[in-house]
Amino acid sequence: MERELAGLAEALPDGRLVTGAASLEAYRRDRAGLSTAGVPLAAVRARTVADVSAALAWAHERRVPVVPRGAGTGLSGGADTPDGALVVSLADMTAIREIDPADQVAVVEAGVVNAEVSRAAAEFGLFYPPDPSSFEISTIGGNLATNAGGLRCVKYGVTRDSVLGLEAVLADGRVLRTGGRTVKGVAGYDLTRLLVGSEGTLGVITSAVLRLRPRPRGGPATFAAEFPTLEAAGAAVSGIVRVARPSLLELLDNMSINLVEDHARMDLDRAAEALVLGQADGPNAAEELAAMVAVCRDAGAASVVETDDPADAELMLGARRKHYEACEARGVPLVDDVAVPRSRIAEMLREIDRVGRESGLLVSTVGHAGDGNLHPTFILRRDAVAEEEPRAWAAAEEICRVALSMGGTVTGEHGVGALKREWVREELGGVGLEVHRAVKAALDPRGILNPGKAF
Amino acid sequence: MERELAGLAEALPDGRLVTGAASLEAYRRDRAGLSTAGVPLAAVRARTVADVSAALAWAHERRVPVVPRGAGTGLSGGADTPDGALVVSLADMTAIREIDPADQVAVVEAGVVNAEVSRAAAEFGLFYPPDPSSFEISTIGGNLATNAGGLRCVKYGVTRDSVLGLEAVLADGRVLRTGGRTVKGVAGYDLTRLLVGSEGTLGVITSAVLRLRPRPRGGPATFAAEFPTLEAAGAAVSGIVRVARPSLLELLDNMSINLVEDHARMDLDRAAEALVLGQADGPNAAEELAAMVAVCRDAGAASVVETDDPADAELMLGARRKHYEACEARGVPLVDDVAVPRSRIAEMLREIDRVGRESGLLVSTVGHAGDGNLHPTFILRRDAVAEEEPRAWAAAEEICRVALSMGGTVTGEHGVGALKREWVREELGGVGLEVHRAVKAALDPRGILNPGKAF
Ligand SMILES: Cc1cc2nc3c(=O)[nH]c(=O)nc-3n(C[C@H](O)[C@H](O)[C@H](O)COP(=O)(O)OP(=O)(O)OC[C@H]3O[C@@H](n4cnc5c(N)ncnc54)[C@H](O)[C@@H]3O)c2cc1C
Ligand SMILES: Cc1cc2nc3c(=O)[nH]c(=O)nc-3n(C[C@H](O)[C@H](O)[C@H](O)COP(=O)(O)OP(=O)(O)OC[C@H]3O[C@@H](n4cnc5c(N)ncnc54)[C@H](O)[C@@H]3O)c2cc1C
Repeated sequence: MERELAGLAEALPDGRLVTGAASLEAYRRDRAGLSTAGVPLAAVRARTVADVSAALAWAHERRVPVVPRGAGTGLSGGADTPDGALVVSLADMTAIREIDPADQVAVVEAGVVNAEVSRAAAEFGLFYPPDPSSFEISTIGGNLATNAGGLRCVKYGVTRDSVLGLEAVLADGRVLRTGGRTVKGVAGYDLTRLLVGSEGTLGVITSAVLRLRPRPRGGPATFAAEFPTLEAAGAAVSGIVRVARPSLLELLDNMSINLVEDHARMDLDRAAEALVLGQADGPNAAEELAAMVAVCRDAGAASVVETDDPADAELMLGARRKHYEACEARGVPLVDDVAVPRSRIAEMLREIDRVGRESGLLVSTVGHAGDGNLHPTFILRRDAVAEEEPRAWAAAEEICRVALSMGGTVTGEHGVGALKREWVREELGGVGLEVHRAVKAALDPRGILNPGKAF
Repeated sequence: MERELAGLAEALPDGRLVTGAASLEAYRRDRAGLSTAGVPLAAVRARTVADVSAALAWAHERRVPVVPRGAGTGLSGGADTPDGALVVSLADMTAIREIDPADQVAVVEAGVVNAEVSRAAAEFGLFYPPDPSSFEISTIGGNLATNAGGLRCVKYGVTRDSVLGLEAVLADGRVLRTGGRTVKGVAGYDLTRLLVGSEGTLGVITSAVLRLRPRPRGGPATFAAEFPTLEAAGAAVSGIVRVARPSLLELLDNMSINLVEDHARMDLDRAAEALVLGQADGPNAAEELAAMVAVCRDAGAASVVETDDPADAELMLGARRKHYEACEARGVPLVDDVAVPRSRIAEMLREIDRVGRESGLLVSTVGHAGDGNLHPTFILRRDAVAEEEPRAWAAAEEICRVALSMGGTVTGEHGVGALKREWVREELGGVGLEVHRAVKAALDPRGILNPGKAF
């Protein structure tokens, strides 16, 4: 392999190729609590689409598996490397090529960190809506590859809904351009959205035309409501999406409240069964807030706090934002990611609670409740991972089955990655799986792109 | 073939198979001004997914081309039949299986007429946003297959944005189910949106889970503004989408104003270069309207009429809704369908005007201006179609080229069909076309589904 790598090094400008076990450690895996990663052959730190193209042409010829990589913040093992794989990192492609206020688009390279887009757009009164909780650390390329969700998605849609066009390198190094910068267009198949969410298995995204929106005038108006039962909280969430248009609607269960409180004292009520956080923006934020608060009270909230001060709001949302950190502080988090139809949230929360208790493990559930997307998080004790892991998998599997039985999905936003492959097959069904394989074979006949992931 | 058709008749319940030239006339072509249609072999009036599956299995075995058909209101020849093709009509699959107000979804068969969905949803305070001007005559299946746009799309998105899941029959008769009824989900590839807009070339859509939205509380607040120049109208449109969220933003040029006025006296100003119609809905409709009207005045509107009366609003919108009829009353309309980035609307209008004048033909332009989507419509004189047609094609081609040079698309919403294939290839590019062919071959290896369409 050494001699062949020399060929790759020659095909790339100096300094792009990373080799050696120590240097490669940073490219081996993502942030999932458990890893399936082996030892990569090398990594390419691409700076241009030509770099990516050269790397893929090289890998294609030799049938070397390729793992595209953004920031490695994924939670499902999507960027885990099989032994001998070539990692293609987009993290150094960080140019924001253009912010166009007239067309309300941004043209950015794949390695740009999500939050940078909104920061660059702010000067024109615009923002980029999709905001995974990892928005300060994850890349646009990774967001696109996973069709990332986030807090604002309940109002503004997921990553898929904010992309107009893509540039991507195909398995053999050819460069594909899809879509454009018009808000409408039906020329040919929707290859843009075929690539979005494909988890690096169909092509390596190198840049994108993103849709920006005018910053809402008015708001945010924010509330935090504590509930004595999961049912009451679930009913509040289901009720709110019927009568209002929240720009954020999050939920933490009792365990989550307590973990966050342990980690960063916030004066949350440790006895509450659930904390629901909601926000409205736009010129009608105050009325929307009033409507949401009324629903919470009707549903039996024990307390409701409101604010129209953005700084206070950020403090309140801190409870949600700090959750993953709080879990990591306690053990090894294994984040599940089911979504159910919004009318079934209370029922799903109850089932998660049941499965969690039966497993005997520490389970903490948060979620983008307004979208029906819940993250039951198993926290394995660091000194007992080997013993607890199989129980966590069994419990996660049961939760996925319950979600499917409610007409839900095994992954609402984190993707299938390496960790959810068994379960997704059940969801896709026999014919669905056959079509996936056919599409994959059509775009990547040698199967080099992120093998063993996504389906 | 007669003996073989007997085999198909046997595979279907009684009364589903239509044969004979006279009966088949109704299944030969769509509403495009010009037709590429030959003579179909037969038509299947499917009532169930099993009917569709049987028809496709039969056709697949014999390599008989299949043309899926909704209401035949398409404007690009998408449902035109090649000689010897089997038409599979979904028009009799008209069940609204479910309206679920809690999950805000509708489950409908492909043959349901668009407007029926909103009528069924209205009783729950919900509506189905995508509303092509053909909403009273076109089917959901046809809307999905073309990713139809419409008047409300400027605020609520196109058909793609309101579909959660599909049931479709593949070329060989297998039944594929995609997506589900959750608002979020990233399990596997986005096959739902791969089928949406695929113009019957990848599968026959038999039913769909559609996303409904709460009916806006407040509005509509509506304006009609007449402009002395195309530039002023274009500037108004570009300005409006920056400062407001119109729920409708349409434009008619001078020729369109005059054609509508000829057809149905509406007291429009025949001298105006452009009429812009706009609407806002929701609790903030009045403020949005005020903002839009201010932009129109600043841009130099000669007159602006406002109303918050829904009946008056419908009268005002009549000018737009009657346009196609007015064109048909005058000759054979050939509707083009370019879209450009929204900042280029004025420029595109000017170019269309130039190309139109150079062609010496009657050209009337309307459009979903808020989305940058324009429909220059060539109206051929009935007694001179043969002579005028080549000039119309040449002019349409030039308009498409100009749109592409502005970063636009050759089809914003009507689809490529049979009529735009040459031009779309330029837009998709060499690699894009290769990927299209690979995807098509993966799903329809025998190439029986709507051959000669879409790309
Ligand atoms: C604290 C925390 C909070 C999080 N919150 C959310 C949340 O709210 N919503 C959410 O959806 N996710 C969330 N995540 C998960 C993660 O941040 C997202 O999945 C994110 O989109 C991954 O981006 P990345 O750049 O880190 O990609 P990586 O982890 O590097 O890769 C993710 C996947 O995409 C592929 N990929 C990456 N870049 C490309 C590219 N350019 N072309 C093709 N394929 C590529 C990889 O092969 C892999 O399969 C969170 C993670 C953490 C650690
Ligand atoms: C007056 C008028 C106004 C219009 N306004 C608009 C508008 O505002 N916006 C807009 O987008 N369009 C508009 N159109 C065009 C047309 O109505 C749309 O393209 C509509 O979506 C077609 O629906 P249909 O049921 O008539 O489909 P058809 O014309 O029967 O078929 C259209 C295409 O879809 C395929 N197809 C149909 N059903 C299925 C199915 N179930 N599965 C797979 N493939 C299928 C066909 O093969 C064909 O390629 C207008 C047309 C007219 C006549």
